[in-house]
Amino acid sequence: MCPQQRSEESRAHILQAAAESFARYGYEATGVAEICRRAGLSKGAFYHHFPSKQAVFLELLERWLRGLEAQLEIIHKGDSAIPEQLLHMADMAQSLFAQAGGQLPIFLEFWAQASRDPAVWQVTVAPYRRFRDYFARLIEQGIAEGSFRPVDPELTAQALVSLAVGVLLQGLLDPHGADWGCIMKEAIQMLIRALERSES
Amino acid sequence: MCPQQRSEESRAHILQAAAESFARYGYEATGVAEICRRAGLSKGAFYHHFPSKQAVFLELLERWLRGLEAQLEIIHKGDSAIPEQLLHMADMAQSLFAQAGGQLPIFLEFWAQASRDPAVWQVTVAPYRRFRDYFARLIEQGIAEGSFRPVDPELTAQALVSLAVGVLLQGLLDPHGADWGCIMKEAIQMLIRALERSES
Repeated sequence: MCPQQRSEESRAHILQAAAESFARYGYEATGVAEICRRAGLSKGAFYHHFPSKQAVFLELLERWLRGLEAQLEIIHKGDSAIPEQLLHMADMAQSLFAQAGGQLPIFLEFWAQASRDPAVWQVTVAPYRRFRDYFARLIEQGIAEGSFRPVDPELTAQALVSLAVGVLLQGLLDPHGADWGCIMKEAIQMLIRALERSES
Repeated sequence: MCPQQRSEESRAHILQAAAESFARYGYEATGVAEICRRAGLSKGAFYHHFPSKQAVFLELLERWLRGLEAQLEIIHKGDSAIPEQLLHMADMAQSLFAQAGGQLPIFLEFWAQASRDPAVWQVTVAPYRRFRDYFARLIEQGIAEGSFRPVDPELTAQALVSLAVGVLLQGLLDPHGADWGCIMKEAIQMLIRALERSES
């Protein structure tokens, strides 16, 4: 194995170990020592890759968000009508739930940290604003293509993002309490129905 | 002041001090000593009222929920049609945002703790299920009175609760990013529009 490859593997091990530790013990209660133990690496190796525990935390969040945005973009490039794109995105959310499994509680940590730590706050809140803008443009397109009534795109996008975030949060808290993927899909369908022109 | 009254005041001081500390430092990082310091009370006084930090935390959550449920019940007793009741509840949510102010970050702590602590989980998740059942009955009534199409009351209620939770969470994270009370109201209006019989 070349040194470059080994270094990337160490980085991946640190991220994986940190995600598990944060989800299990919480961000505050997790130390760099615990992350190193779980990753099977020395503290020296840790600090070679990351300046702090917070830096690992922020990279975990950014990676997840980049993955989500890339998936949304693939659907958007597909060129179907906006209501179908939104439904397709709801399907995607359904499979995100199925895949993410035990990793999800880390989001609760991101959110709790964001209320206290300005650096985490920036990284946590900026994407919501980005998602809101993204969906506002999508809804504008839906209006332009004649699928939707002339609603306020910003407010509607905000309602859409809130709905997704609310389903996600409840799915994190109560994974066996309901079929969250199915609820996500139903909720998006209701929203689309509210937006569609009644004459169509 | 009679001893009974003084005792209730101490209890209230402990709850207030704990809410401030949890919101500021997080649940994990807050000790009973910090709560006592902030409340101006001894540890003996603390343990006279509560067996543990967790017990204070759970009482804070339960108090907030009981207040919310009482407000919903007042609106529901008002006997107007279901769509108007829902809009009225959205108004109430708007004023909840305005009142709660700096206390809100504590919810992020409840949620993060719930993913790790079964006792907190019980107390955090049970109310969502209760709210879902409550709104499912409301939607059933809306269908019975002819306001709503014959939708699935459980799924619709879940979407409604998710929407409210999502707006709440985003309002906690980004209080100045949007007019959250207004978004709550708009979102509920959209949902009602999606539920209403198209012939009416």
